Amino acid sequence: MAGKTNNHGLFTTGEPVSAWTVSTALPVTYQVAFTPQLLNPGNPALASAGATPGRRLVVVEETVHALYGDKIRAYFGTRGLAVELGVLAAHEEVKTMESVFRVAEWMDHFGVSRRAEPVIAMGGGVLMDVVGLACSLYRRSTPFVRVPTTLIGLVDAGVGAKTGVNFGRHKNRLGTYHPAVATLLDPAFLATLDQRHLSNGLAEILKVALIKDRKLFELLDRTGEALIDQRFQGPTPGGEVLVRAVHGMLQELQPNLWEHRLERSMDYGHSFSPTVEMRALPELLHGEAVCLDMALTTVLAQRRGLVETAERDRILGLMRRLQLPVRHPLLEPETLADALTDTIRHRDGRQRFPLPVGIGDGCFADDLTAAEIGRAATELEELACVAP
Amino acid sequence: MAGKTNNHGLFTTGEPVSAWTVSTALPVTYQVAFTPQLLNPGNPALASAGATPGRRLVVVEETVHALYGDKIRAYFGTRGLAVELGVLAAHEEVKTMESVFRVAEWMDHFGVSRRAEPVIAMGGGVLMDVVGLACSLYRRSTPFVRVPTTLIGLVDAGVGAKTGVNFGRHKNRLGTYHPAVATLLDPAFLATLDQRHLSNGLAEILKVALIKDRKLFELLDRTGEALIDQRFQGPTPGGEVLVRAVHGMLQELQPNLWEHRLERSMDYGHSFSPTVEMRALPELLHGEAVCLDMALTTVLAQRRGLVETAERDRILGLMRRLQLPVRHPLLEPETLADALTDTIRHRDGRQRFPLPVGIGDGCFADDLTAAEIGRAATELEELACVAP
Repeated sequence: MAGKTNNHGLFTTGEPVSAWTVSTALPVTYQVAFTPQLLNPGNPALASAGATPGRRLVVVEETVHALYGDKIRAYFGTRGLAVELGVLAAHEEVKTMESVFRVAEWMDHFGVSRRAEPVIAMGGGVLMDVVGLACSLYRRSTPFVRVPTTLIGLVDAGVGAKTGVNFGRHKNRLGTYHPAVATLLDPAFLATLDQRHLSNGLAEILKVALIKDRKLFELLDRTGEALIDQRFQGPTPGGEVLVRAVHGMLQELQPNLWEHRLERSMDYGHSFSPTVEMRALPELLHGEAVCLDMALTTVLAQRRGLVETAERDRILGLMRRLQLPVRHPLLEPETLADALTDTIRHRDGRQRFPLPVGIGDGCFADDLTAAEIGRAATELEELACVAP
Repeated sequence: MAGKTNNHGLFTTGEPVSAWTVSTALPVTYQVAFTPQLLNPGNPALASAGATPGRRLVVVEETVHALYGDKIRAYFGTRGLAVELGVLAAHEEVKTMESVFRVAEWMDHFGVSRRAEPVIAMGGGVLMDVVGLACSLYRRSTPFVRVPTTLIGLVDAGVGAKTGVNFGRHKNRLGTYHPAVATLLDPAFLATLDQRHLSNGLAEILKVALIKDRKLFELLDRTGEALIDQRFQGPTPGGEVLVRAVHGMLQELQPNLWEHRLERSMDYGHSFSPTVEMRALPELLHGEAVCLDMALTTVLAQRRGLVETAERDRILGLMRRLQLPVRHPLLEPETLADALTDTIRHRDGRQRFPLPVGIGDGCFADDLTAAEIGRAATELEELACVAP
């Protein structure tokens, strides 16, 4: 704490000062680990994550509870941990503070200790964001552990520090930075995921590939359809795809966890998509909206000469093979203009617009115009119409 | 980011690892400064706090708006800053997420830029806690500036990093650590404060005095009644009292802003009071509940031999002269037991109970029993009955 004297005459020499600068820092450390057979009672990872034995409140998504509820109870029972389960519906339309309140009420009822009983969040990205926000707010910060059960949760929401809920039709308008003390990744959960949610997660993996990892793109291009067919369980290089995606994400997050730098390559595909996703509710999943944004900006980048025509077509082709949308009626001037306006506010007055450069690299632009965006949208629509 | 290899067989040597440790730190710097004549257009402090000229959203408490609304508009008008005012009712019963939502809606409507347009919060402790939480949540963190207009706001809520709202009849159960980029303290606002709210603030000043600053206690003992009479405006040493209180508070906060250490001397008077205050709503102001807690624990400390009988009586006498309560029907076994249970959870399983040692020093206890607390409550009631 630095103090300085001034001339306000509030005190005599030797007395405390009347202006202060408080300077300090919050250290943050968290673990992200692939941990196969997470619900096998022989695996101590989940029971010991974040704390010593005691009790646990587990907030679990409805669908996950239907499939794994008994296994979860058996796991904690065998490990000798008293457990209480809270079953929560989780999708974009209930990604609200009301859901956060429900979790906070469970925490109150359970009587969660302030530091020693981490709440466990098991589910997809929405559930983890909601539980994360509840834990962040409860007593101004309670530890939690994430167990993502969807592909998008595994490679995106489960990896970073962000929590959030939608508010006033704006995506994630209220939230915090509150990373889980540990995130445990078990690809076995993907065995029960449907095709659409696998494609949804592949969109975020494709983002990492397009903006910073050409090798990951090649892997997706070669094996993407098989990954969906085999749900990341078979002899395909699913593990390598997952690890590269998580690694790429963490590389970007670590030096910029609180987003003090607003040029973020991981924002690629997230400039137009928040507004498109919210306006289309409940039609589009998050990754689908992100893919639409990437399709549009790939065309825009090609028109700028940043991406070759063959690369553009290869990218759009892969999107289709991953069963992701590349066209949508909301890619029209008014929605895109509104989206850009909000994104500029979100990036503190500048576009700081991530654009792909070739495949596997990117840059930031500040000079997009409504006309340019409109022409790209028109061209994308034409390309999407004629494609097989 | 530290990675380590493992045996899960997810990748071959040379590929990315499959377990990561993310380690980083959030740097935090904020200013607290006494700034007389804050609403004098010749004083640039408020206009320039936290950012360069632009626009400002000012969230102002109803009563403050009635007294100072015109001056606030005139100030920003003269300084050439476009300003929009949001007028908010603020007291413990509306210290809820609903009030946070109102502020967030104003921020949406105003179109607050993410970093360049700090929201200004003008009012008492409740208003600053509510606006602080809204700013903390909005886009996961928007800067704000605090202008406390009450005594308790000036020496307590305005100085630290905490935001919060009540939830489920629990005080400040949901909140964050999100210090204002600047807090500007102008004792001139106290000229329009009533006696009860002056006494309310003096309770938090007395807390700092009792637990760590004997000289401040002597000052209060000598001049407390005059400070109330003159509303900190006259020739009394109001400035010195305020500066010592703020300085003492910041000394404790700076090394422990996120409360990683749960032995906190500034928690003195805050062990039983959160439950008492919430159960008594709307009867007791925050400082009044804190004073009851301090009266009870002063008696308890005397019974332990930590405080001399004469010191105890001097403390209780000063509380009365500051027109603060020292007895209350809720200081009874059941409420006190419930309060202790919740406080133990809040302090992660241990009492970590701050107790005064003499006047101006303190210690922490872990061995309070219900019987001991009950005896102290009975004795306080007896002392309070026979006192003049």
